[in-house]
Amino acid sequence: MAPSADNEGFPTTVPTTTVVVVGAGPSGLMLASNLLRYGTRVILLDDRPDRTTTGKADGLQPKTIETLKQLRLADELIRNGAKVHDISFWDSTPTHPLRRTGRQLHYPDHLVGASDPYILLAHQGMLEDVLIDDIEARGGRVQRNSPFVSVNKPPSGELEVVYEDISTKSKKTIHTKYLVGCDGARSKVRTFIPDAQLEGEMTNASWGVLDGVIDTDFPDLWSKVAVRSHTAGSILWIPRERGMTRLYVELSSTDGEKVDRAKATPEYVIARAREAMSPFRLEWKSIVEWFGNYVVGQRVARNFSDPENQIFIAGDAGHCHSALAAQGANTSMHDSFNLAWKLNLVSRGLAHPSLLSSYGEERRKIANDLIAFDAEHVAAFEKGEAALARNFDENIRFISGVGAEYTPGLLTKSGKRSGGVKAGSLMLPAKVTRYIDANPVDVQLDVPMLGQFRVYLFVPDVNAGKGFLDGFCEGVSTALREIGEKAAESYAEGPRGLAESDEYVQPDRYTTMSQVVTYGLVTQSSKSTFELADLPEVLQRSRWTVYLDDVEGCTAKWMGQLEEQQAGVVVVRPDGYIGQTATWTLPEGAAAAQWVGEYFTFCT
Amino acid sequence: MAPSADNEGFPTTVPTTTVVVVGAGPSGLMLASNLLRYGTRVILLDDRPDRTTTGKADGLQPKTIETLKQLRLADELIRNGAKVHDISFWDSTPTHPLRRTGRQLHYPDHLVGASDPYILLAHQGMLEDVLIDDIEARGGRVQRNSPFVSVNKPPSGELEVVYEDISTKSKKTIHTKYLVGCDGARSKVRTFIPDAQLEGEMTNASWGVLDGVIDTDFPDLWSKVAVRSHTAGSILWIPRERGMTRLYVELSSTDGEKVDRAKATPEYVIARAREAMSPFRLEWKSIVEWFGNYVVGQRVARNFSDPENQIFIAGDAGHCHSALAAQGANTSMHDSFNLAWKLNLVSRGLAHPSLLSSYGEERRKIANDLIAFDAEHVAAFEKGEAALARNFDENIRFISGVGAEYTPGLLTKSGKRSGGVKAGSLMLPAKVTRYIDANPVDVQLDVPMLGQFRVYLFVPDVNAGKGFLDGFCEGVSTALREIGEKAAESYAEGPRGLAESDEYVQPDRYTTMSQVVTYGLVTQSSKSTFELADLPEVLQRSRWTVYLDDVEGCTAKWMGQLEEQQAGVVVVRPDGYIGQTATWTLPEGAAAAQWVGEYFTFCT
Repeated sequence: MAPSADNEGFPTTVPTTTVVVVGAGPSGLMLASNLLRYGTRVILLDDRPDRTTTGKADGLQPKTIETLKQLRLADELIRNGAKVHDISFWDSTPTHPLRRTGRQLHYPDHLVGASDPYILLAHQGMLEDVLIDDIEARGGRVQRNSPFVSVNKPPSGELEVVYEDISTKSKKTIHTKYLVGCDGARSKVRTFIPDAQLEGEMTNASWGVLDGVIDTDFPDLWSKVAVRSHTAGSILWIPRERGMTRLYVELSSTDGEKVDRAKATPEYVIARAREAMSPFRLEWKSIVEWFGNYVVGQRVARNFSDPENQIFIAGDAGHCHSALAAQGANTSMHDSFNLAWKLNLVSRGLAHPSLLSSYGEERRKIANDLIAFDAEHVAAFEKGEAALARNFDENIRFISGVGAEYTPGLLTKSGKRSGGVKAGSLMLPAKVTRYIDANPVDVQLDVPMLGQFRVYLFVPDVNAGKGFLDGFCEGVSTALREIGEKAAESYAEGPRGLAESDEYVQPDRYTTMSQVVTYGLVTQSSKSTFELADLPEVLQRSRWTVYLDDVEGCTAKWMGQLEEQQAGVVVVRPDGYIGQTATWTLPEGAAAAQWVGEYFTFCT
Repeated sequence: MAPSADNEGFPTTVPTTTVVVVGAGPSGLMLASNLLRYGTRVILLDDRPDRTTTGKADGLQPKTIETLKQLRLADELIRNGAKVHDISFWDSTPTHPLRRTGRQLHYPDHLVGASDPYILLAHQGMLEDVLIDDIEARGGRVQRNSPFVSVNKPPSGELEVVYEDISTKSKKTIHTKYLVGCDGARSKVRTFIPDAQLEGEMTNASWGVLDGVIDTDFPDLWSKVAVRSHTAGSILWIPRERGMTRLYVELSSTDGEKVDRAKATPEYVIARAREAMSPFRLEWKSIVEWFGNYVVGQRVARNFSDPENQIFIAGDAGHCHSALAAQGANTSMHDSFNLAWKLNLVSRGLAHPSLLSSYGEERRKIANDLIAFDAEHVAAFEKGEAALARNFDENIRFISGVGAEYTPGLLTKSGKRSGGVKAGSLMLPAKVTRYIDANPVDVQLDVPMLGQFRVYLFVPDVNAGKGFLDGFCEGVSTALREIGEKAAESYAEGPRGLAESDEYVQPDRYTTMSQVVTYGLVTQSSKSTFELADLPEVLQRSRWTVYLDDVEGCTAKWMGQLEEQQAGVVVVRPDGYIGQTATWTLPEGAAAAQWVGEYFTFCT
């Protein structure tokens, strides 16, 4: 539970917390929601007086949908959002009028393999409402009218964050261990991080954006559409919730002349769109929102944190790029998703502070991948269908988010194998049957996000693998005993922030063995061949994560082909990335346990 | 929008409405929610001061889950409820101790074919909350503290319903066209329907029911379990939400001695359960709720309405049976689901009043099927696994709800074919791709429930079938013009009760041609071979219900094999039952339209 800002329950007159988050957009809200869930105290400051009612970042990618499902927050957005499954390409040239030149699935299964293979369009305010509700359900809140002013680092080591309380027009101070700036492209927190300026290109590419209900005879109104006209630039159509459509209308190309800001009125943008879409009729029943002269640049901050790992930036504060590929809120929330569990473990004293360095290493890599892709994407958009289709095919896994991968490091260790899942990449979606209640579940969604790791054992035949399981479970109990005991104390003192809805999730089912690790078993043995009571105690106590691989071949998907004399072990990080994976022979249970124990050397 | 009970907006001093519903349990709430949705005025009276916090009817069957999905009300219940996918059988005899004798899927796909093949366990209060929220979102409310007293039928034809206002201890009157008693097994409304007494058997079978969190070494705690002990009767285990388990503990068998009510204490029920479950440990961490001495009978009211079709009963008021097969709330809500659209059409003057006779005909048939099954089920339960397994296999489609079928009548006309869907049965679940936005959808769920019929055309090749489609669309426009115009007037005057969430559903997309019928097309043609603009105007305007049969063979599932020279036509009632279905040859478009027109002769 977060302390309230009026300092209730704390002895000093200056409020104390663990993390101050500045900015209640998607990345700040995701961060606060995660931290509360994991049981880390947080104060979330926002300069605005109220919730967002406008916003450009409205497209949720397949990986983001998966993340929201893992957090049990996706239902309402999926029910109410528009789902874009396909993209069509249109162009006109001096010799032929506007015509469709191609149509394809946006996220083909063979290239992406996402369980929700679509872009979910939902107004930024809808997404933020879901996160705010979750924050409030866990005892937190957004502190409005509170712009961040400055941060001091006294020798004591504890940060002093100063913000303005607009309602009383006074400066106020908070003592905190960590500060995270989720305060957008013009981040003020960023200015307190040495050597963190944005680097990259600003171009003259500029777009007008219109959201509204369209009346047209253009046939592909409900697909994503990339239009390239020879007379009036390019247009991107994106269907939206509530019968609306978003149009991105190109006002100036990358190499074009800069657009005069005064010229970019809605009338001008509409006129340009009509010209590009001719001969189709293009009328608006209503225009709900518009942004003119949205200039495209691709830039990344040189550093995402200070050298002491006390001050961080996430989201647009760390990277900016075009809105065309609908990446913004997605990457931003995943910055937070990466940072939250690390802040939780380190602030609890369960991991060495150096763990926090991995945040910048990992997320700057993704940000650089993103702007590299984005620059190509904007260029391809201007070149037309063939270039854009090629750009899509090459980058589609990355665009979807399921292809965002980390390079080897402290948390992503290459293992003794290749094929199947690999360290630094995400869990692969796979359906399995939960042993205990015969429920078919998605293995990547089933375990709730509690800030803990997961260790999955793949044992094709439970009875043949009994020796491996016994050896592994005995070894791992020893190897992770100390961290387990320390975690038990920590969570007893500072429990996770439970929402009322967690009564239905029963999170306790997943931390029976340890607050830091959930153990799971995936086996091809049929249910009738073994009882839970036949398993070693670690797995008996982990009974909610014993799975039968009888639906679509989870074992093959995750491990490649496993021989009967082999077992697979996969360590999954709290954010769903594979930490390490290896194949063992059945006599090697104890060795596999030791190898798992070694992964956790960053735990103190 | 329902008038408020304080008569705001009406000229007389006595409130006037179209339907008075008595009782805010599952059937009353479903009825009021449906009526508001369809735009029929309703006053919902309930004698209790507050929402339900206890309740025995907690198991939602596959068809009920489908119905809630069709109403866009299922998400929260599915997220929070426990899902029972399998059932196991245990017994003990004098010669062997308690042991598992079998385990099987509860709703095997080859027997049931439901898209949600499980029982969803969610407290009755959770279900009622969902319905109450929907009612309130559509401008209605539950009028509490208002027990029904009597109904008079003055010569004027309008009913005078009298209820007690407990807060002022005064009698109040409402004028209404229709009265529906959803007031339970001891229905007071039923006493005002001539010749409506309950008929059937009362037995001595009696059960104690315990809800709580169980601590046990019994391995099948999270399956549905039927236990038959030779010393202490039978027990049924049902997993529940929030880590709870429900136990039905047999206190007396059908032929046994009647149980003394004073004897059926929780202690007695627990002791009996422990004896039956021996040698397994059986402790409760908490007991949340219990009911003793739940006596089983199977009875159905002789009539579900008065001869003038003004007063009706639905739910437990019309039928009672055991709770063992988890049928209660399911059948009750489907009574209401059957009645609501008929009351809406008749009260709007869009259908002949005789349509209302079909309610009792259809639902008494289901109630009789139910008690026939239930008597066998209770008996089988006492006989042990073999009998129970046989009883299950024979009745599993009926238990799931997807096998509840109506006999031929005014609304269910046998057609020119067999195979695939048939008149009187439900739509079959099938995945298709929506043409307009490439979204994969479930054909049986996609069209929102607006109280309208649907006419689906199955045309394997759209280009080859152009003549059929033209002929059909021209013919049906003429045949249903009059009713369409009348309906347009009626809904302009009394529009449907929209919730804010309907902005995301966009119900207007489905009534572009008529307020009484949504037209749909399912074709095996690929998307690249035709444009929506190639279709006749009726289907161009029905663009949100043009489907590509490219996922799992919807055409074959619904129509059997259709030759290229054939077309299928299916009329679906507002409650999802097939009204009529037939196969035509391609030259017969006009004849098919006439045949559809003839179906609607009950429209005035």
